[in-house]
Amino acid sequence: MTSQSRAGRPKALTIAGSDSGGGAGIQADLKTFAAFGVYGTTVITAVTAQNTLGVRAIQEIDLSVIAGQIDAVMSDIGADAVKTGMLSSAEIIETVASGIRRHGIKNLVVDPVMVAASGDRLLREDAIGELKSALLPLALVVTPNIPEAEVLVGGSLSGTDEIRDAARAIAGMGAGNVIIKGGHMEGPESADLLYDGAGFREFSAPRIDTNNTHGSGCTFSSAIASGLAKGKSVGDATADAKIYVTEAIRCAYPIGAGQGPLNHFFESDQQSRIKDA
Amino acid sequence: MTSQSRAGRPKALTIAGSDSGGGAGIQADLKTFAAFGVYGTTVITAVTAQNTLGVRAIQEIDLSVIAGQIDAVMSDIGADAVKTGMLSSAEIIETVASGIRRHGIKNLVVDPVMVAASGDRLLREDAIGELKSALLPLALVVTPNIPEAEVLVGGSLSGTDEIRDAARAIAGMGAGNVIIKGGHMEGPESADLLYDGAGFREFSAPRIDTNNTHGSGCTFSSAIASGLAKGKSVGDATADAKIYVTEAIRCAYPIGAGQGPLNHFFESDQQSRIKDA
Repeated sequence: MTSQSRAGRPKALTIAGSDSGGGAGIQADLKTFAAFGVYGTTVITAVTAQNTLGVRAIQEIDLSVIAGQIDAVMSDIGADAVKTGMLSSAEIIETVASGIRRHGIKNLVVDPVMVAASGDRLLREDAIGELKSALLPLALVVTPNIPEAEVLVGGSLSGTDEIRDAARAIAGMGAGNVIIKGGHMEGPESADLLYDGAGFREFSAPRIDTNNTHGSGCTFSSAIASGLAKGKSVGDATADAKIYVTEAIRCAYPIGAGQGPLNHFFESDQQSRIKDA
Repeated sequence: MTSQSRAGRPKALTIAGSDSGGGAGIQADLKTFAAFGVYGTTVITAVTAQNTLGVRAIQEIDLSVIAGQIDAVMSDIGADAVKTGMLSSAEIIETVASGIRRHGIKNLVVDPVMVAASGDRLLREDAIGELKSALLPLALVVTPNIPEAEVLVGGSLSGTDEIRDAARAIAGMGAGNVIIKGGHMEGPESADLLYDGAGFREFSAPRIDTNNTHGSGCTFSSAIASGLAKGKSVGDATADAKIYVTEAIRCAYPIGAGQGPLNHFFESDQQSRIKDA
């Protein structure tokens, strides 16, 4: 392959926290972008000392360095799609929203990260207003799980009708498409509900009994961003992402003593000559 | 594949800076680990706002958060090999060296990063003493390029004899194996020289006329760490790494207007069903 033949290689940017354990955050996003054949770049908003058992420390990055990373990537490399993950404070959300507006980013997937799989809080309570007012109106897609959707709408959700109402309410905050993820529900199927502002579509997969769910939300949203970067519709990108994250959970291998990561490279596990050499 | 079948999946940790542009630093390391089928974890020492044209800003991470990341990864996930990259200050080097000793890390590859491909300085001048006295004695392998070897030995190097003397001198600082990389030399071949404390071995590849060398040093050292994580000898890991980095440079595609990155996934480019779907 010459360098010319892939001049149009799709590119995606993640704006999120760093997970030292490699299972969530920008690490999960880079792994997912790679699995989809998308060139990955990063804006780190916070560095966490974290493993599969929990978050031990968080250092937020200076607002000027967050803005500087956005400008460095967008002015030189660009991005066909962008996703946001952990944005821990109102000031960080404001800085990121401003950068997204400054560079006219349209293919934006917002994963409204609030709590880690371990239960550790990743978003300050007083930042939820900023998330709703500054970031959601810029989002092509927002991907809350049930607890996050409950925080966004300010009430508990049970049953299909309430979840559909919540999706409509979150779309009313300005997001183009709302995907409420069913991973935290019960039952034999894990169903994600996509509301595109007009109608609903459901994406189901058999629920897998596993501890390897650390970073599944990051992975799902970056898989959607990968599809968008490759020119897919929101519906098609979501369908592909649901299959990808389900298989990555199913093919996970043991890492750490707690909530383990997914296997982002299940597809290439038996394919690469290098790694089996 | 069940989760049991890959219980022994190799794991590697990078302790380095973050390159927002995705071509160098922990991003290049994670991509390389993935290409070798190795599970990747990270300790971020500094966050840079950077693209293919240069480094715009650097924020060093707090020493307590660097130490916290090392402890979080090593106490739960562990690592079969560790590499270090950008360690910008004497205090950071001391913190990292202390963590390496605390966890008894033996398979350590030290890439003595001093200057980015763009020419930006990544190591403070007053930290070179600490690098030599605290970190090199812990290294199984150290991978300076010619300018870095010149700084380590304190004199200019030209010709095979001087380079061999430099390798002996750097081994005398305590590193088990010294690889002086020839990428900054001239001539039709790019030759890397390995000194194992007793004898020399040369690894050559045709020099490629390209701007896509951003992160080649990070990639080479993390490829060696990948091989060590999989139980290879230093010589075999170096031979594989030389082939990998050469092909990743040859198969690079255009990204950015400056020193572009390598194509870390050249092997899987035509293999994955996901990314071509």
